[in-house]
Amino acid sequence: MEQAAPTFWTKKDLIGIRELSRGEIELILDTAPQFLAVSKRISRIKRVPLLQGRLVVNWFHEPSTRTRTSFELAAKRLSADTLSMTASSSSHVKGETLHDTLANIEAMHADIIVLRHSCAGAPHMLAADHSSHIINAGDGRHEHPTQALLDAFTMRLALRENSANKDATLDGVNVALIGDVEHSRVARSNIFALTKLGAKVTVCGPVALLPAQVEKLGVRATTSLKEALCDADFIYALRIQRERQGKGLFPSLREYVKLFRIDRDSLRFAPDHALVLHPGPINRDLELSTEIADGSRSLVLQQVTNGVAIRMAVMHLLANSQSRQL
Amino acid sequence: MEQAAPTFWTKKDLIGIRELSRGEIELILDTAPQFLAVSKRISRIKRVPLLQGRLVVNWFHEPSTRTRTSFELAAKRLSADTLSMTASSSSHVKGETLHDTLANIEAMHADIIVLRHSCAGAPHMLAADHSSHIINAGDGRHEHPTQALLDAFTMRLALRENSANKDATLDGVNVALIGDVEHSRVARSNIFALTKLGAKVTVCGPVALLPAQVEKLGVRATTSLKEALCDADFIYALRIQRERQGKGLFPSLREYVKLFRIDRDSLRFAPDHALVLHPGPINRDLELSTEIADGSRSLVLQQVTNGVAIRMAVMHLLANSQSRQL
Amino acid sequence: MEQAAPTFWTKKDLIGIRELSRGEIELILDTAPQFLAVSKRISRIKRVPLLQGRLVVNWFHEPSTRTRTSFELAAKRLSADTLSMTASSSSHVKGETLHDTLANIEAMHADIIVLRHSCAGAPHMLAADHSSHIINAGDGRHEHPTQALLDAFTMRLALRENSANKDATLDGVNVALIGDVEHSRVARSNIFALTKLGAKVTVCGPVALLPAQVEKLGVRATTSLKEALCDADFIYALRIQRERQGKGLFPSLREYVKLFRIDRDSLRFAPDHALVLHPGPINRDLELSTEIADGSRSLVLQQVTNGVAIRMAVMHLLANSQSRQL
Repeated sequence: MEQAAPTFWTKKDLIGIRELSRGEIELILDTAPQFLAVSKRISRIKRVPLLQGRLVVNWFHEPSTRTRTSFELAAKRLSADTLSMTASSSSHVKGETLHDTLANIEAMHADIIVLRHSCAGAPHMLAADHSSHIINAGDGRHEHPTQALLDAFTMRLALRENSANKDATLDGVNVALIGDVEHSRVARSNIFALTKLGAKVTVCGPVALLPAQVEKLGVRATTSLKEALCDADFIYALRIQRERQGKGLFPSLREYVKLFRIDRDSLRFAPDHALVLHPGPINRDLELSTEIADGSRSLVLQQVTNGVAIRMAVMHLLANSQSRQL
Repeated sequence: MEQAAPTFWTKKDLIGIRELSRGEIELILDTAPQFLAVSKRISRIKRVPLLQGRLVVNWFHEPSTRTRTSFELAAKRLSADTLSMTASSSSHVKGETLHDTLANIEAMHADIIVLRHSCAGAPHMLAADHSSHIINAGDGRHEHPTQALLDAFTMRLALRENSANKDATLDGVNVALIGDVEHSRVARSNIFALTKLGAKVTVCGPVALLPAQVEKLGVRATTSLKEALCDADFIYALRIQRERQGKGLFPSLREYVKLFRIDRDSLRFAPDHALVLHPGPINRDLELSTEIADGSRSLVLQQVTNGVAIRMAVMHLLANSQSRQL
Repeated sequence: MEQAAPTFWTKKDLIGIRELSRGEIELILDTAPQFLAVSKRISRIKRVPLLQGRLVVNWFHEPSTRTRTSFELAAKRLSADTLSMTASSSSHVKGETLHDTLANIEAMHADIIVLRHSCAGAPHMLAADHSSHIINAGDGRHEHPTQALLDAFTMRLALRENSANKDATLDGVNVALIGDVEHSRVARSNIFALTKLGAKVTVCGPVALLPAQVEKLGVRATTSLKEALCDADFIYALRIQRERQGKGLFPSLREYVKLFRIDRDSLRFAPDHALVLHPGPINRDLELSTEIADGSRSLVLQQVTNGVAIRMAVMHLLANSQSRQL
């Protein structure tokens, strides 16, 4: 049963989904549609002045054209000023350096810091000691909260558009997460978000790529794609991290494709209404066949569109924390 | 004889000059002067709100400070939002990847994509399958249409400023293109534009650097600089691509300078009123002597100034295709 | 005794402090407070429209996240358009190339060029031949004028905040510059600015890192930290350039730390009211102990904040040269 979303947002930062209540997640999802409408304005100004004069700093320690672009557009469509800082990824967190750099950015009066870092916990560490709003844009294998929010938003929107119930929720909806669950921050954040929203989550992949005791997170685990898909309303294909191959964990690509690829053949296991998501970029014909990725059951491009709206909603809520929802 | 330019622009994209009619080229040239005036505003706001709220994405797969900067300024002076994406050049077009990336950009509601790519045909391939406006900013050895447009605009402006006829056209004007015509997309686009506009084009360079059967494009070819310059109203020195040397095609630089450099000596072959252009950046004292490049007969910096105006005109016409000319 | 600052700014460029009069320096310092107030606006628009529609080009031939970011923010908070151009540092100044590139930028109607270059004199050379406003953002070992201006502004602000005299100046104030004075453009610009403003400057460091005949610049020199600090009102720790080690000039880090580090122990030599500055980024616990850098006597983050305001003041004065102070 859905609970009423809170009217106010109170957290300074968005570090992970794990720390959010169902109500907080729903406040974000309920705030996004108005921003989706802003981006879809045709031939008119795709901007609202909600963050005019605020400074959003995109601080990416790992390369990411897609996520960085999405955050940058979200900031611009809120009329914020933007600044990009990149840094070569380093194998160890140099705590002092990160703190010093952030202190400097803050001394120039930055308002929101969007941080991607290869080390799990870096955004949390910085958020605790600094006053600016920190948004985690992916930290190591830990979390990627805006990805999970845009995914949940996309599923909820699809449910509402395909049913008579314009208030449909993810309660009781079946979601299958397929692939390398063990190493995926996208999977972790999605598991937290989906289970909090009442969905029933099944994770499926090669046994070495399923986390030990993943059931403790409230999900069902299986190595059988057929079993995972048989009742799925949404099928979420995770991206294969090719660099993990050859380390004894990952099967051959040929084996993976045969057992876990989402394609016309494997979709026969799933209900006819099941829809397909992927966080992008797709390794075409490895985790997802081109036919399905580009077909009518794919929500992949809607995810991208919704990502800008969700990030606008998150920035707006953080920057105006404790303010009323619009 | 000049034909009346059409009042409306109807094409979605600008891929090459080859596909344009004389009227379409003239519509662009006739639209540029108002934008030239915008850039020249002194101490006042160098902006018009024609693309306010639209998103222009500069997507460069080859490095290019000048062209990228010119497009970025053009977009900003039209009040568009801009986004830059770079990519390391790859030797093969990975069709799927380009399509996927563009689909993602479009899902974030981009309006105009400015694409530079090392593979001839990449902009054409993308334009056919996507709904955003694609502007070719140079594709392999194929075309560089905005360069040719700014060159033609610069020549026409010089004619009008230097004559009593404020409506002077390029009809019957003699243009000499000097250098590596074979490998130059600038030369190809200029040949298409100039011949369509009624100019008489002579190409001149070492025999190995003149395309076979170049006369079929409606130009005269010669290996004699004297012959090329004798009746030239405009002399266009192409940039030497030094990386082509040592492959058997290119003469020594010493030989090139002796036979084809535009300098005080070689200009004696040309009429006194002949003016000099170069697409930049100049290899000083190789294809063009410093004295001439910086002298009163050089149009090189006017080309740069006019480039911003032409790119504003192209973006405005594409984004408002089928709208009336201002 | 303080002289009245001039009401008008008349110079086209800001190349070095050496060329400025005391009055000109004070005009900049007197213009900065209003811009400090703009940056500190909370939840309101951190912008003024003074450079609306002007184009500021950040042209950095050396990497510098901090200085580049500070200039970019300053330009944006003046509502200017900004453009970034980077270039790999080259060991020799290619005069022609710099001139050509700047001529091109100017042909696109740029108004202010912020230049960092590894070669001393590069900004001066360009300013002499071009009409745009050039701001030196650091050239080789020569000068870094905006750093010295923000440092002097920070000291003056601290004096005024800590005393009953709201018009306090640096006249007669003692400043100790500690470290590698010989190779530091920050030290050079600070020596010029501070002595012109009436401060008494002592430079202190290993003998090989103190310039020969530095006393001719009007400063006292010593290799004894105790002597340098004994009457210091402000202590300025210079950044250690680690790449200078191993060339026979620099002592071991261990030796440096023992003799010249500003920390709780060495501060016992200084008056209780002495405050500490550093140009950043700090090599923590080498030239400055973490305890002091983050403590109540550190002005390090105020320097960063004031840097944006000083750069706004400089851009405003240059772009509106000969106009009245606001």
